[in-house]
Amino acid sequence: MTTSANSPAANSPALDPRDFRNALSMFATGVTIITTRTASGEPVGITANSFNSVSLDPPMVLWSLAKNAYSLPIFQQAKEWNVHILSNEQEALSNKFAKKGEDKFAGITLDQGVTPSPLLPGCSARFQCRTMFEYEGGDHIIFVGEVVAYDQTPTPPLLYLSGNYALATKKTNAIATEIATEMAAEHAGQGKAPALFSEDLLGYLLGRAHYQFFHAIRPAMQTHGLSESDFFALSVLSVREHTPAEDISHHTAYTGASVDAKALADLVARDWVRVDAAGYAISSKGRDAMAHIIAAAKAQEEDLGEKLGALELTALRNLLKRSIMQTDPGLAKLWKA
Amino acid sequence: MTTSANSPAANSPALDPRDFRNALSMFATGVTIITTRTASGEPVGITANSFNSVSLDPPMVLWSLAKNAYSLPIFQQAKEWNVHILSNEQEALSNKFAKKGEDKFAGITLDQGVTPSPLLPGCSARFQCRTMFEYEGGDHIIFVGEVVAYDQTPTPPLLYLSGNYALATKKTNAIATEIATEMAAEHAGQGKAPALFSEDLLGYLLGRAHYQFFHAIRPAMQTHGLSESDFFALSVLSVREHTPAEDISHHTAYTGASVDAKALADLVARDWVRVDAAGYAISSKGRDAMAHIIAAAKAQEEDLGEKLGALELTALRNLLKRSIMQTDPGLAKLWKA
Repeated sequence: MTTSANSPAANSPALDPRDFRNALSMFATGVTIITTRTASGEPVGITANSFNSVSLDPPMVLWSLAKNAYSLPIFQQAKEWNVHILSNEQEALSNKFAKKGEDKFAGITLDQGVTPSPLLPGCSARFQCRTMFEYEGGDHIIFVGEVVAYDQTPTPPLLYLSGNYALATKKTNAIATEIATEMAAEHAGQGKAPALFSEDLLGYLLGRAHYQFFHAIRPAMQTHGLSESDFFALSVLSVREHTPAEDISHHTAYTGASVDAKALADLVARDWVRVDAAGYAISSKGRDAMAHIIAAAKAQEEDLGEKLGALELTALRNLLKRSIMQTDPGLAKLWKA
Repeated sequence: MTTSANSPAANSPALDPRDFRNALSMFATGVTIITTRTASGEPVGITANSFNSVSLDPPMVLWSLAKNAYSLPIFQQAKEWNVHILSNEQEALSNKFAKKGEDKFAGITLDQGVTPSPLLPGCSARFQCRTMFEYEGGDHIIFVGEVVAYDQTPTPPLLYLSGNYALATKKTNAIATEIATEMAAEHAGQGKAPALFSEDLLGYLLGRAHYQFFHAIRPAMQTHGLSESDFFALSVLSVREHTPAEDISHHTAYTGASVDAKALADLVARDWVRVDAAGYAISSKGRDAMAHIIAAAKAQEEDLGEKLGALELTALRNLLKRSIMQTDPGLAKLWKA
């Protein structure tokens, strides 16, 4: 069944394939691996992002495969295939199935599906399909399949956008709009000086997010009579054994706290810290206190994770790490020996 | 051109449409508006996420439209349509075109395309197409179009995932993996006590991201001889005019800073702050200093934005706002009168 008003050649623009591909890549997608078996039963799989849903009743999905793909005749012959929507933890699997030539299925324990097609574990969702239609699509063939079985997990999916893997994070325009409206309403026509900054100022957001998070941890710190700079020094020593004074100072100075010789001597006198020729180390009393404080931090993190969701927490960690890398004032790696 | 090994009815699983739709929604997509014109020239447009690329040579894309959609006969008759990949700023437009019955194009100044189909401004990418094929797809028709013109902008796109609008943020597994490997290598078999926390601890990441960001702003603060708690007090007064002492204290206490009566008296004595019956207000000297400090914060934000990209900065702001909402210790809205 086709209807065509224009022949493909008639109006093809003189386009640069790479530029066209770039424009197409502005459409974000998930990442899938699609699997089948050869006539002799060998498992075959490829990474594809040309998947999409088609029909609810009957349940149908589609994807496209290049006419010059070595696996095209296999998929055409097999009539059955599984679509795996990859989770954010399956980036390596995506890369593996995007390449040719290796034994892609080595070391993978397959799940049992309703068809013979290989069923990979650990995905965000899976659709087991039978070919219903194969359609002409220029340099690709469009496979339309009936979904005969499917399942899903709560694991956040992997995304692909502009040639990069990505994570999704929920959009919250509503807040920004609300605040902008409030500010406009407050200042409009009141003859007031405008606010010097808005709630979009990144420095404000970083500070407020950090201090509010830390607000839940501060009581545990205060229970042990630790000041903020005590806590920063003990944090460094929670990760590094035997650290010279200058390294402790180096790793805490960017916070604005001053951990000098006097502060360290004071920590030793209060038995939070031991010192020997190899440097400073956390005492067992210090370690117990830090374990208690870090437990409070983990409880706060878990609470926030429950409210925001696992996906959001992963994305937030991810963005904070990338910010840290970009604003790093040249710190030695804290976790590196 | 069709090939079918299975009739649609033969193997349809007894599936719940809502559950099936949920599983499908684990495949992230961009959001598009697809437009055309009726025979009499009226503009028509619908929101769709069933778009995907098909072919590079010739350039072709596809999307699906429900057979019971009121616009189906219009698209079938028109033969020309434009696909707009919406930017993250076009959520409202997406919602508008997802509904029926209003004049969706009211107030929009259209761009001029190569076909008569309406061309919307402000999108991440646009594809002007002519129908090449219409294919059977269960309860949908699959439209395959030849791309006769296209363009794109650097504006980050809007995403749709699990029934929510979303933003994408680049994935950086590499860092986390590197750190985990370092830690394992450092501690394995060395008889060392394990580090009490890893670089994945959210509290650590929030603190380090914040302090490193603020590190670039601190010199501006110190130039004016302002302490951290001075700065917090002036920050509140940069946004709120005439504020009672208890409100300043309320809005700064969660940072751990103490802005008490003595601190306020000191700020007044140094001419950073004025006080009258209506409360405390920032002086013109204070306002100048804060403008200088906030300019430093904006420069640091701009620098980070250039390194991370606009999309990442938007996603980071977004996640910080959502964290702030969830960890709010009950602060009155700073920007609200």
